[in-house]
Amino acid sequence: MSRPLDRLRAAAADREAAGLRRALRPRGPDHDGLIDLASNDYLGLSRDDRLVKAAVRATEKWGTGSTGSRLVTGSTWLHAELETRLAAFAGAPRALVFSSGYLANLAAVTALARGGLVVSDAGNHASIVDACRLSRARVVVTPHGDVAAVEAALRERAEEHAVVVTDAVFSVDGDLAPLPALHAAAVRHGALLVVDEAHSLGVVGESGRGAVYAAGLARDARIVRTVTLSKSLASQGGAVLGAPEVVETLIDTGRSFIFDTGLAPACVGAALQAVEILEKQPELPERASSMARTLAGAARELGLETADPAAAVVPIVLGRPDDAVSAATLCAELGVRVGCFRPPSVPHGRSSLRLTARANLRSDDLAVIRRALTAVVERKVGK
Amino acid sequence: MSRPLDRLRAAAADREAAGLRRALRPRGPDHDGLIDLASNDYLGLSRDDRLVKAAVRATEKWGTGSTGSRLVTGSTWLHAELETRLAAFAGAPRALVFSSGYLANLAAVTALARGGLVVSDAGNHASIVDACRLSRARVVVTPHGDVAAVEAALRERAEEHAVVVTDAVFSVDGDLAPLPALHAAAVRHGALLVVDEAHSLGVVGESGRGAVYAAGLARDARIVRTVTLSKSLASQGGAVLGAPEVVETLIDTGRSFIFDTGLAPACVGAALQAVEILEKQPELPERASSMARTLAGAARELGLETADPAAAVVPIVLGRPDDAVSAATLCAELGVRVGCFRPPSVPHGRSSLRLTARANLRSDDLAVIRRALTAVVERKVGK
Ligand SMILES: Cc1ncc(COP(=O)(O)O)c(C=O)c1O
Ligand SMILES: Cc1ncc(COP(=O)(O)O)c(C=O)c1O
Repeated sequence: MSRPLDRLRAAAADREAAGLRRALRPRGPDHDGLIDLASNDYLGLSRDDRLVKAAVRATEKWGTGSTGSRLVTGSTWLHAELETRLAAFAGAPRALVFSSGYLANLAAVTALARGGLVVSDAGNHASIVDACRLSRARVVVTPHGDVAAVEAALRERAEEHAVVVTDAVFSVDGDLAPLPALHAAAVRHGALLVVDEAHSLGVVGESGRGAVYAAGLARDARIVRTVTLSKSLASQGGAVLGAPEVVETLIDTGRSFIFDTGLAPACVGAALQAVEILEKQPELPERASSMARTLAGAARELGLETADPAAAVVPIVLGRPDDAVSAATLCAELGVRVGCFRPPSVPHGRSSLRLTARANLRSDDLAVIRRALTAVVERKVGK
Repeated sequence: MSRPLDRLRAAAADREAAGLRRALRPRGPDHDGLIDLASNDYLGLSRDDRLVKAAVRATEKWGTGSTGSRLVTGSTWLHAELETRLAAFAGAPRALVFSSGYLANLAAVTALARGGLVVSDAGNHASIVDACRLSRARVVVTPHGDVAAVEAALRERAEEHAVVVTDAVFSVDGDLAPLPALHAAAVRHGALLVVDEAHSLGVVGESGRGAVYAAGLARDARIVRTVTLSKSLASQGGAVLGAPEVVETLIDTGRSFIFDTGLAPACVGAALQAVEILEKQPELPERASSMARTLAGAARELGLETADPAAAVVPIVLGRPDDAVSAATLCAELGVRVGCFRPPSVPHGRSSLRLTARANLRSDDLAVIRRALTAVVERKVGK
């Protein structure tokens, strides 16, 4: 038994004692017969025949991999088409596709903030937190949703340039960032505003064009958006949307763009098809968000702690990690798969269930979901 | 015109003056009729019918996206199967699949090094450099290939735990790391050794099982390997191979594992098929590496600066960025697409062409390639 592994084993035992072990539970193709409220397939497109066919066509035409960095052989006409379509859909000047939303955030924040100041909301996604750490910029973390704190950090800075970064819809609480106020603060202080639309693209705004679009800010050159192609677009990958200057900066200096393999053709094709579907079926996003309101309403009626969903994410705060785990297990026994979030995904004491609404939930699904939530409440009260 | 964009434009003008602007040049499905020596499709599998069919089957059965984090709904039976197969193929205890090799490196190094020391070779890939920066460990960068410096850093450390990290085959020079010596140093000083097999998997060792396997170190629990699925396996994604303790540490604490969407089914299916092909066609890797030796021999005969290729990567050092760009352009005019590397991908003064060999190059391709390299030499001499 070697020393370095002893240390890992000891750390695992500590996590075990704190209720923080995780296990992979590979699922079957039909989500094991459970109603899926855990995935991020907000529009229910991941098994949609049109997306499947588009991915198949892309693979048959372009092969199984992009074969290289986007700067070498990893950019195909299909990637270019997706960039054009995504930009047009979101009303952005240009778009640049990455192999994940995670790497898109790393590139956007590090390339734009380097040597300056980056102001980041305390509730931002882990990929933004990592991006800030990597940026070699001074990082100020502001309390969640606190525009005055953002403004103060910008005003009091010594650095010439600054970037403000925020999730549009926060992944934990499902709430919307104060985009117009953040934008005004950024403009007043000559900063760029980077907005992560991972949870808002495809759900928020007309046809799902996102929160920046819905706020009427899409064409502002000081706003940079990052998106994932893996949630409402039911594929994989990410993108940065912004001014030509921003995209060109990322092409020249974005390390996680330059030194990463381009997105696989199948994923490019599926995402492209998803954007087309959104343009043709503008009712889909509204279906997902009204489902979310229905779920939140049902939870609230049962006395559970939840929040008004800005998009498809409905949090139910339970508190301790083991309460969240046993509630999730109970839901699964009753036919519903829900997400279960424990530290470090959520703050200590805020372990939660996360229900994600889907545009294609049916009314008999809702009855099963209500029964499961009722059982969670009864178990809690019974304790 | 807004201030923040002025700054980006000024920086772009500086890069322009230094010959460091880059442009995306989307390609057609057949590499625009050029002989491809630029991609990382070392085994020529990206258009292989078996891989295409496997990706199609995976998409039809599992959908276009994995729909969530590997810890929520993003682990399917197919992901589990790929992990089992990859581990068995490489002779590793376990494997964990990521959405890219980049994110696999970030997770492996940050999760294993945090709070300790990380010793990183100066020639390591950008994703390892970023991983070191993110790790919150003390980072010592050692001169390229300098085992004595690694040993000194390990010996003189104050930190209890340490990680040594190296590319197996370096992406710029194509040379092999001194794995047995690094392993011995790591063992002597109670450190883990993380080896990035991006360029060696599928090319080095019996059936392409990689450089760690070829060195007889595959079963050592102190060795952690990272791989990409996007080069010889012709798909997309990455993986970490190692002891159960290592994989469990990454599942519990690897931020770029937990907070990222699982790899798309199409990519999982294609990679799985590529591993099967390697097991059935053990001659493929040797074909790629002997092609690389042929290319290096041809370059050397012409008086070009190259190196003995350890895998499929053949560098040709030209010096100035614009020399490399014009040589690459000339090759393209003569029917050969080669890679062109400039700072920050390579050190200043070492701008290069990079030729990557492919198992399926034909002898008439070689004649065309020789003509192109001859023209590069004539242009250089003519200057
Ligand atoms: C807010 C947010 N940003 C970024 C990401 C990362 O996107 P991807 O999974 O495509 O890497 C996610 C989720 O995965 C997210 O929830
Ligand atoms: C040595 C090395 N490590 C890691 C990576 C990253 O792998 P991926 O492209 O799958 O992110 C690459 C190339 O892309 C590489 O060359």
